[in-house]
Amino acid sequence: MRATAIAQPNIALIKYWGKRDCDLNLPAVGSLSVTLGSIGTRTTVEFDATLNADRVYINEQEADSANRRVENCLDRFREKAGIAHKAIVTTANDFPTGAGLASSASGFAALVVAADRALELNLGADELVDLARISSGSAPRSLFGGFVLLENDSGGGTRCSSVLAPETWPWSIMIAVTSDAPKKVSSTDGMESSRTTSPYFSRWVETHDADLQAAVANIEKRDFEKLGELAERSCLKMHAVAMTSSPPLLYWSGATLECAQNIRELRKSGVSTFFSIDAGPQLKAFCLPENSEMVRESLESVPGVLRVISSKLGEGARIVE
Amino acid sequence: MRATAIAQPNIALIKYWGKRDCDLNLPAVGSLSVTLGSIGTRTTVEFDATLNADRVYINEQEADSANRRVENCLDRFREKAGIAHKAIVTTANDFPTGAGLASSASGFAALVVAADRALELNLGADELVDLARISSGSAPRSLFGGFVLLENDSGGGTRCSSVLAPETWPWSIMIAVTSDAPKKVSSTDGMESSRTTSPYFSRWVETHDADLQAAVANIEKRDFEKLGELAERSCLKMHAVAMTSSPPLLYWSGATLECAQNIRELRKSGVSTFFSIDAGPQLKAFCLPENSEMVRESLESVPGVLRVISSKLGEGARIVE
Repeated sequence: MRATAIAQPNIALIKYWGKRDCDLNLPAVGSLSVTLGSIGTRTTVEFDATLNADRVYINEQEADSANRRVENCLDRFREKAGIAHKAIVTTANDFPTGAGLASSASGFAALVVAADRALELNLGADELVDLARISSGSAPRSLFGGFVLLENDSGGGTRCSSVLAPETWPWSIMIAVTSDAPKKVSSTDGMESSRTTSPYFSRWVETHDADLQAAVANIEKRDFEKLGELAERSCLKMHAVAMTSSPPLLYWSGATLECAQNIRELRKSGVSTFFSIDAGPQLKAFCLPENSEMVRESLESVPGVLRVISSKLGEGARIVE
Repeated sequence: MRATAIAQPNIALIKYWGKRDCDLNLPAVGSLSVTLGSIGTRTTVEFDATLNADRVYINEQEADSANRRVENCLDRFREKAGIAHKAIVTTANDFPTGAGLASSASGFAALVVAADRALELNLGADELVDLARISSGSAPRSLFGGFVLLENDSGGGTRCSSVLAPETWPWSIMIAVTSDAPKKVSSTDGMESSRTTSPYFSRWVETHDADLQAAVANIEKRDFEKLGELAERSCLKMHAVAMTSSPPLLYWSGATLECAQNIRELRKSGVSTFFSIDAGPQLKAFCLPENSEMVRESLESVPGVLRVISSKLGEGARIVE
């Protein structure tokens, strides 16, 4: 009743922001992401009838605050397996915290894959997607590799699948870390504030699907420039909604914006690259491998950039033990 | 047939962005501004039957590019006066260019007041407002002093008036100059791009009047905090529309954003202050006079701030000779 899985963080190119159902954690809009290689989360789950409580260790420290979300996730697996065994969950990230990478995405993707195997449930992909999503809205995307599409389905759930495998179109991803401080407003709280207070939220939702479908079409055509244009647009549309929330959510620092301006300048000079920014001050730049050193140098030259982490595209969540 | 007028720049608290009629230069939304004291534009107009062309001197240099807008404005006065005399226009700003202050606003306000006097037309305020507006959308606001409201009227024009005189509620205004480079996209071009391409433009227009009316009410109540909240919100709503235009209009530099974050931090620490940003990288901070040194020091501490220009509130355009 024990299994270990690895999952890797993902970065959305077409952004998810806002929920249509908080209890079921259903997103208001679909999203399109790339799953990272190089860095990941390793999670072991062991169900044990002799335990009287779930225990969760994150990066070798017993976790309190994350515990409840993990317990809720384990409860759903226990219900499906018809057992009451508590579990020990041991999880470790080999990427630095504060890198603006959603460790909850890779963490819950690894957890559902490991729990499924530990209990020998052999759940289908759709069930794993729903179980991951209810814990973390971006976790289903880390179940799959390469370019990943997450959409609401007509049955009141979500479906998620890989649009293109990572080896089919190699990319480089550079993460410019501009702050190690935890963000002041969590994504969950920020999303709910935007849904209820931004005058632009309704238009964000109404105009989102066109961006999503256009982005999928440009992945199929391998049109890096057009996809980059759509991705920057989606990022700015999301941050425009965040910054018009009450109170305003300004997730960027000066260095974030200078990195964005540098990427735009690089592109003007003929280098194919684009940026994305999540609910925090780190900037993520995307390029084809031949341009990765130029992009890295440009980001490293910005005062306020603490370090640049590089990655390629990676695989979906998988059992390793 | 000669007169000299002075007018002063203004800064919008509730922003104007987007036109509903480009030929008549009618704004899509009303706006609320403060007219600055301390710095201004001085313009002399002299109509002369012996001239065979209008001549325009700006800061002691003969102007070519601004000429056409000035000629069009003079044509409207010539039509009203029933004369064909050409004119010499001499105008000088005593504030630095590149300060992110719309010199077209104070320039055209001074021009219409001087031209009216030179031709002894004695036009009413409403006519001067329409003549100023057709040349520069924010110029009518510099015709008036203190806190100024500009609104579309039901007759297809605009009306403009002072809500509160400058001496009634003294303020300090600090302009953090972060770049002397001319902006890459003019306000006129940026507005038109936003109107035609931003998915949020319709909501900007629909939700604008509530901000405007609330701001006027809070000026009448002298509620600095609430007015500041509305002003920052309007500024961010405008920039959210700009940055979601195609191509995106990102008028801020890293230093602009760091200044904004500093002002937010100062406010959290109990200092009454708020910011606004126009279509360029300068940041304008507003406070009551007792806090002006603290606000100035905070802005000057931001790397990338070249200088801070301070001002108080000022009067409307007026004849001086």
